[in-house]
Amino acid sequence: MIDETHDPKRRSWVESANGHADFPIQNLPLGIFSPVDGDPRPGTAIGDSILDLRAIAHLLAVVPGEALSGTALNDLLARSPHERRALRQRLSALLSDQQHEPTLRTHLHDAAHCQLHLPARIGDYTDFYVGIHHATNIGKLLRPDTPLLPNYKWIPIGYHGRASSIRLSGDPVVRPVGQRREPDSPSPVFGPSARLDFELELGLWVGAGNPLGEPVAIADASRHMAGISLLNDWSARDFQAWEYQPLGPFLSKNFHSTISPWIVTMEALAPFRVAQAPRPEGDPKPLPYLWDDADQASGAFAIELEVTMTSLAMRDRDVAPQRLSLSDARAMYWTAAQMVAHHTVNGCNLNPGDFLGTGTLSTDSPGGLGSLMEMTLAGKAPITLPTGEQRAFLLDGDEISFSARAETRGFVTIGFGPCRAIIVEGMGHYRSVDACDTITLL
Amino acid sequence: MIDETHDPKRRSWVESANGHADFPIQNLPLGIFSPVDGDPRPGTAIGDSILDLRAIAHLLAVVPGEALSGTALNDLLARSPHERRALRQRLSALLSDQQHEPTLRTHLHDAAHCQLHLPARIGDYTDFYVGIHHATNIGKLLRPDTPLLPNYKWIPIGYHGRASSIRLSGDPVVRPVGQRREPDSPSPVFGPSARLDFELELGLWVGAGNPLGEPVAIADASRHMAGISLLNDWSARDFQAWEYQPLGPFLSKNFHSTISPWIVTMEALAPFRVAQAPRPEGDPKPLPYLWDDADQASGAFAIELEVTMTSLAMRDRDVAPQRLSLSDARAMYWTAAQMVAHHTVNGCNLNPGDFLGTGTLSTDSPGGLGSLMEMTLAGKAPITLPTGEQRAFLLDGDEISFSARAETRGFVTIGFGPCRAIIVEGMGHYRSVDACDTITLL
Repeated sequence: MIDETHDPKRRSWVESANGHADFPIQNLPLGIFSPVDGDPRPGTAIGDSILDLRAIAHLLAVVPGEALSGTALNDLLARSPHERRALRQRLSALLSDQQHEPTLRTHLHDAAHCQLHLPARIGDYTDFYVGIHHATNIGKLLRPDTPLLPNYKWIPIGYHGRASSIRLSGDPVVRPVGQRREPDSPSPVFGPSARLDFELELGLWVGAGNPLGEPVAIADASRHMAGISLLNDWSARDFQAWEYQPLGPFLSKNFHSTISPWIVTMEALAPFRVAQAPRPEGDPKPLPYLWDDADQASGAFAIELEVTMTSLAMRDRDVAPQRLSLSDARAMYWTAAQMVAHHTVNGCNLNPGDFLGTGTLSTDSPGGLGSLMEMTLAGKAPITLPTGEQRAFLLDGDEISFSARAETRGFVTIGFGPCRAIIVEGMGHYRSVDACDTITLL
Repeated sequence: MIDETHDPKRRSWVESANGHADFPIQNLPLGIFSPVDGDPRPGTAIGDSILDLRAIAHLLAVVPGEALSGTALNDLLARSPHERRALRQRLSALLSDQQHEPTLRTHLHDAAHCQLHLPARIGDYTDFYVGIHHATNIGKLLRPDTPLLPNYKWIPIGYHGRASSIRLSGDPVVRPVGQRREPDSPSPVFGPSARLDFELELGLWVGAGNPLGEPVAIADASRHMAGISLLNDWSARDFQAWEYQPLGPFLSKNFHSTISPWIVTMEALAPFRVAQAPRPEGDPKPLPYLWDDADQASGAFAIELEVTMTSLAMRDRDVAPQRLSLSDARAMYWTAAQMVAHHTVNGCNLNPGDFLGTGTLSTDSPGGLGSLMEMTLAGKAPITLPTGEQRAFLLDGDEISFSARAETRGFVTIGFGPCRAIIVEGMGHYRSVDACDTITLL
């Protein structure tokens, strides 16, 4: 629902918010932060500052104080969309009306000096595969004639990922070691991944949960969707190819996932909901539990996604980041509501703070690919960086950075904050066995 | 390590413990229970009773009081094996020495009147596939000539499951609805699963965790293993066949998993650790990170597993449960330590209270199969119950019950308590669309 909080003319007395690329007053994303020498608490990003929501909980009585007092947002995410919207309206009023400045100013912290934390305790993490161009590109590498499997257009394909290894933007990613098998070898070798990749995704935060055994009807799905962050689902392609049959990816994915620190709420995203692209001629109409006309009319997101990269050499020489991709959330073949309805149709229970990745989002153009696997055709066509360096997959010292903008004519553009990390060498623990890398152990 | 707590001559002043099939004083499993009108708290099962560990925490000062004060055992599982062993020794002394009876008697509750709860908050749940006869039997149904995939003898195959839908023994299992595709149809149908199955597994409780990026060496793996419960990984075979490519099982498994309520500790299981069966001639030797001579010498478990079943008609007519299987934990091709070492080799972090399923444990004999899928050859050879009823897969009202006994000559046999549940009809929410069951929706 679009209301006065989305008014493009609304300005904040926090001057840095006005014209801010990510956090104008029209955004008001939720997160957990620690001010200098302070403990973790809920906050909202406003321009270059963070407002302490715990400290002003008495001014935000539209939600219970407990929801703003913890070190994770799970209790707040569990509130109804009605309450979350009331909170947003209140925050927007407080941060736009100059009369509140004297009261609030002391609870405003310079974001540059705050530490950010995971916004919620993630109970379960599910990763979907709804980026149809990505699924097609990957499928083509394996099955040029029939890239998409027969279930793809019937089922929002998904699987369970690892919740414990989800980390915030900025945390370095330790290159994983493990098993891979070279194409013409009968046995695997052991060592650091030689085909480390990123995956450009959005992640959906679950709001209210559902009891076990009680599916969420698609028309009710939006009640269970609290907001969105950016997600990099780092992948070791060599490990994946060797391990994934018959039960799916495991160690190739669970070593680390990076998310952006702020939950951009569904309320903030209201102006950026657009119609889902019509299914191409000949595609099956989904089963009734996955179909809702209202969802089709406004279930997609007008969010542009950008991937940039720097190598160690680029940073040494102050070379600007290289853009690798400009992608779009409209590449989702299934909507977020369809993901929720499918996930729960068998009675599976979602909890507040669960996290649902979309899967890699590539557009159908060569400039909009969401992984190196696609850009380099599984490593056969390396990309070239401004320094002349080539990359088939990521090397130690490489940094991948995602950013995103929700944009619709007539509204103020909002962003998500950074989702970035540098690859670092694997643990010393296994350095001594790196020699195994080139030895086939029988 | 075997010590005086395993002495077969040790008796308890709790008379029902002496000769108890599951909970003699040599067991002392850990769980969470509520006495009549009481709140959840840690306890240990002793015969037909449960001892309140929170109430006697002052007598158990070998572990910090906080570890015994919560409503989940995560903090206790996180303690070192040394501390957990000291706790066991103290409990064994308190419950064997008659002089403590006056003090403890008031904190002993009749188990029949207590409510049991999940013993720990399960952060992440991983399910392995180390039952080699099961993997072979299932593989044969798909690929008669090459039942095991090339990675099976190199990798303890595993994948992430759903933590939120793990429930305690006794909770009914709601038959899931979802998509399946009949063999000769181009499109799926929607309705209740017609091929609902059980899977006989053990589940390993993770003790101390490891930081992200720091693998657990196999020689240290036992430090991270706290105990074992029984696990029924209910599976909708029809959903699984249609959904599982390319990312693995999802809705076919995540609707419900049942566990037995007590954590039988690694300390209690010490006498029942036996040598891992030698790998058959021709099998590859595992990579070094998966190999430890000490683990091979004592990494297996002498645990016998039994599956019984009753139908509604059997219970109506007071017919005794039918045994479906007598299986054995020695069917694990990979040890628990190998599962832990593999899971973390890429840096993936485990947390206290995480749960690692073994995968279905079938022996190589027809009487030792761990799923109906195997017993009925994917439904083609139904089993017959004493009532004359036939079952290819489970019907509503069927109850599946697992029990297990750890047994070694010279020691008192210990058990795990029940792991059982009845299948109930799916939710009314979807009853109205059950008609879809027989209609192909285009």
